[in-house]
Amino acid sequence: MKQSRMFIPTMRETPQDAESLSHRYMLKAGMIKQMASGIYTYLPITKLVLNNIEQIVREEMNNIGGVEIQMPVLHPRELWEESGRWQAYGSELMRMKDRHDRDFALGPTHEEIITALLRDELKSYKKLPLTLFQIQTKFRDELRPRFGLLRGREFIMKDAYSFHSNEASLNETYRDMYNAYSNIFSRVGLNYRAVEADSGAIGGSHTHEFMALSEIGEDIIAYTDESGYAANVEKAACPVPEMMADAEQRALEKVATPGVDSCLALADHLNIELIDTTKTMVLKVDGEFVMILIRGDHELNEIKVRDYFRAGEIEFASDEEIRGVMKASPGSLGPVEASVPVYIDHQVNVMSNYPTGANIDGYHFINVNHGRDFETAGTGDFRFITEGERAEDDSGAVKFMKGIEVGQVFQLGTKYSEAMNLNVLDENGRSVPVLMGCYGVGVSRTLSAIIESHHDDRGIIWPKSVTPFDIHIITANPKDEEARNAAESLYETLGREYKVLYDDRKERAGVKFADSDLIGLPYRVVVGRGIKEGKVEIKARDSEETAEVDISQVTEYLKANY
Amino acid sequence: MKQSRMFIPTMRETPQDAESLSHRYMLKAGMIKQMASGIYTYLPITKLVLNNIEQIVREEMNNIGGVEIQMPVLHPRELWEESGRWQAYGSELMRMKDRHDRDFALGPTHEEIITALLRDELKSYKKLPLTLFQIQTKFRDELRPRFGLLRGREFIMKDAYSFHSNEASLNETYRDMYNAYSNIFSRVGLNYRAVEADSGAIGGSHTHEFMALSEIGEDIIAYTDESGYAANVEKAACPVPEMMADAEQRALEKVATPGVDSCLALADHLNIELIDTTKTMVLKVDGEFVMILIRGDHELNEIKVRDYFRAGEIEFASDEEIRGVMKASPGSLGPVEASVPVYIDHQVNVMSNYPTGANIDGYHFINVNHGRDFETAGTGDFRFITEGERAEDDSGAVKFMKGIEVGQVFQLGTKYSEAMNLNVLDENGRSVPVLMGCYGVGVSRTLSAIIESHHDDRGIIWPKSVTPFDIHIITANPKDEEARNAAESLYETLGREYKVLYDDRKERAGVKFADSDLIGLPYRVVVGRGIKEGKVEIKARDSEETAEVDISQVTEYLKANY
Repeated sequence: MKQSRMFIPTMRETPQDAESLSHRYMLKAGMIKQMASGIYTYLPITKLVLNNIEQIVREEMNNIGGVEIQMPVLHPRELWEESGRWQAYGSELMRMKDRHDRDFALGPTHEEIITALLRDELKSYKKLPLTLFQIQTKFRDELRPRFGLLRGREFIMKDAYSFHSNEASLNETYRDMYNAYSNIFSRVGLNYRAVEADSGAIGGSHTHEFMALSEIGEDIIAYTDESGYAANVEKAACPVPEMMADAEQRALEKVATPGVDSCLALADHLNIELIDTTKTMVLKVDGEFVMILIRGDHELNEIKVRDYFRAGEIEFASDEEIRGVMKASPGSLGPVEASVPVYIDHQVNVMSNYPTGANIDGYHFINVNHGRDFETAGTGDFRFITEGERAEDDSGAVKFMKGIEVGQVFQLGTKYSEAMNLNVLDENGRSVPVLMGCYGVGVSRTLSAIIESHHDDRGIIWPKSVTPFDIHIITANPKDEEARNAAESLYETLGREYKVLYDDRKERAGVKFADSDLIGLPYRVVVGRGIKEGKVEIKARDSEETAEVDISQVTEYLKANY
Repeated sequence: MKQSRMFIPTMRETPQDAESLSHRYMLKAGMIKQMASGIYTYLPITKLVLNNIEQIVREEMNNIGGVEIQMPVLHPRELWEESGRWQAYGSELMRMKDRHDRDFALGPTHEEIITALLRDELKSYKKLPLTLFQIQTKFRDELRPRFGLLRGREFIMKDAYSFHSNEASLNETYRDMYNAYSNIFSRVGLNYRAVEADSGAIGGSHTHEFMALSEIGEDIIAYTDESGYAANVEKAACPVPEMMADAEQRALEKVATPGVDSCLALADHLNIELIDTTKTMVLKVDGEFVMILIRGDHELNEIKVRDYFRAGEIEFASDEEIRGVMKASPGSLGPVEASVPVYIDHQVNVMSNYPTGANIDGYHFINVNHGRDFETAGTGDFRFITEGERAEDDSGAVKFMKGIEVGQVFQLGTKYSEAMNLNVLDENGRSVPVLMGCYGVGVSRTLSAIIESHHDDRGIIWPKSVTPFDIHIITANPKDEEARNAAESLYETLGREYKVLYDDRKERAGVKFADSDLIGLPYRVVVGRGIKEGKVEIKARDSEETAEVDISQVTEYLKANY
């Protein structure tokens, strides 16, 4: 493609209103144009990359037997009423009325449509399993669209839905999808992790999020470099420490701690380290008071507490409730002679002679030992993991990184099939609800995530798998006829094996080089003054490795290096 | 692809509510599923064919330098206000409000968006010409959606827009597009004609419609088989007859014609042929009365009258107006001593001694001759052409056929660039509005048009260029293990060179054959009883040519015949 006939409106200035690196580079490289908040036109470079990503997604879906369809954008309200989501989805669901005053949603996801589609066509378990997918523009009325394509209101998704007559089949497809997603995100060049996740608005139990590691993500991922281990910090299990040899238990002692209302203040007051203190909290678990002790430098993880107690609702007891039940203020609580059951974190379980509140305002005990001074109702993992601790799979020390969610796989179970009567006859002729899975890839978001992790301070560095063109041919001086002829001829030759962008514009060399770095194709071939000696310069965008190559050897060079 | 894992819900019964053959076959072949009036899910077969059509469109657009982009579905109202179409487009424009109560249109076409996009980025004529296109789902709230994908409310379009600094450039791209469209419709196997057309709501002057000839079209096309000639009957020029040798002019005579108020009645009364009569009409052309005579068997074409007079508005005079100005009733009008200018059709110009009304109720003249009995203010083409007449290009006798509009090319000129301030600096540094063209292909409609013209009474017959699969392998008896193994092996071998659908379902042979005819792949390979002797049956879907082929020769046979 000749660049003069392409539409790549690059910018010299860095756009000030862009909130993320990918957003900034996409604007600067002339890849997108905002038409309204969170609504963009995808310009030629973007469209080429999207087509490449879509093709990778399509191949991986086909490889696991996924069949492509295309469902409508406009969803009749009636179907969303059946699933209960016309109300539940809230104001993120875009809605409209047609000329006959009938209500429609603009599809943000297609569970209702696909379930309605199949309930009319699917009669017997013999037609199962079945996996259908589509790649399509979707709509979500984000309250605060931002980060360019990362959080838009109109965006491209691949969504797939699978249908099964038994759990084993659902599990098998879920595994296939998990692997296909791993292939997709590897192929497009993302450093990603699959993490267990909450299922959010869609509902269901088994689910993983595929997170591209990135500094601008909204979730924190605990991961190791040594294995594929990754978990949302909300879920990441803490290591259970080994019990130490029994320490000598010193005598329990009550000490005055006037004004001490935090672990930091206590450590200071007692002249000990923060990690030698404990923190006592009282929570209401489904209405019942419990006390939990964690180490002073740790942070309570309410999701783990809820999971431990298999509770529906948990909340911190209010100051008033605490004073009512414990007869002391929150800063002076402790387990000794506590009137509620006491649970301790694994890490407290290996401590001895530690300080706690005395349940008397202004007093703490020191040299507390569980077993001797109070009985524990249970020991568990009640806290957030911290960086540097061993990962659950023991592969190494966990690191933290923010992540951009680029994909998610769900086991929906019978949530939609039961709500919307998608049943089949099983082997015994009984009508049973169909088991479903749903699987999403944020295609336009993936593009942004790729840029977030493939760039330098001059611009984008496209992975070869998704690059809009393979090679950028540039004439340094467009008035040099010899160079221009050589470039035209290279353009033709290389064009037979590579996707080539040829910068034939009448711009200064500096502008061309800056644009070229910004656009970030894997290889650049510069036809400059060296052409007098039959030489061109070839430069790799990622390694910046540069070579003077005889023009007759360009194909050879690229064959060896590309 | 194994058919058991594909989703092709064919029907045994012919759907009763389908209004066109393509609609019927698409339902019966399990290709589409209606979700709401005019809104469909495209099932796997349809999606494969759409992908093929889209790829052909994309290639032809790329061949003429078109660059692919993707514009949003949601269009801010403000842009449609600028062009004046927020009001003008009427209730076919689907509209919605976002959570902040801002108005958006769901794009039926993208002139506003692309003009707004370019006005910020385009500064100089040097960046022109430029052609951008997209393939996208569009929305139009049809009052009466019907014919399946032919008139839907949500449909797939390829729309392209070109930008120019001078007419010559616009004309060149228009010609390129015209040729690309011809290639597209030829490649997908349509019998089409490019016809001059009115520009409808989009506005502009130069425009052609690409019509797929079909019995269910809504427009009537006059065309010849001998050339590419085609015109909407509203535009098709009538042949100008050669003047005959002067006939002897008989004496003008007034005759009583009581109760005669039509040409048919007049012919009957005078015992002459209808083609020997004339029809006199009085019209108001931009408010001025004129009289037009055409032959008795012809029909007045108001569009031609408007074009002849270059008039803004034309209408038939009311009975009251006629009696006021002519002192006679509509059935008795004539040119002799008429008080308004008289124009005659070319075909009347070669008549002599013809009857006309006498401008006295109940009386006609016979033996009227223009020149002698009245002066003509002009002679022109005022009527619709009829089948069998010579075409304007003299290539042959015109035939009539209905046509489905599958594409349209427009020269928009400066309509949008002036309304929305899309200007560039020209060679002389003056700011000038950009000339634009726009070019549409109805992708989903094209699919329907293909079926309308490629089928027999058993089902669809896909052209090879768009077929969802090349070859259908069928085992007649799925319990025959030898046949099944042979089929599996063929599936693998042929799969390396062809797209193969393998009907591995446990269905009766009759069901499989019926489905196969319905789905209509170019070649069918049946592995039946003959496999005992190593033979399979290969049948071409179009010619129905059938051959017994040794299983080792299948690839050879297809190589020679496909």
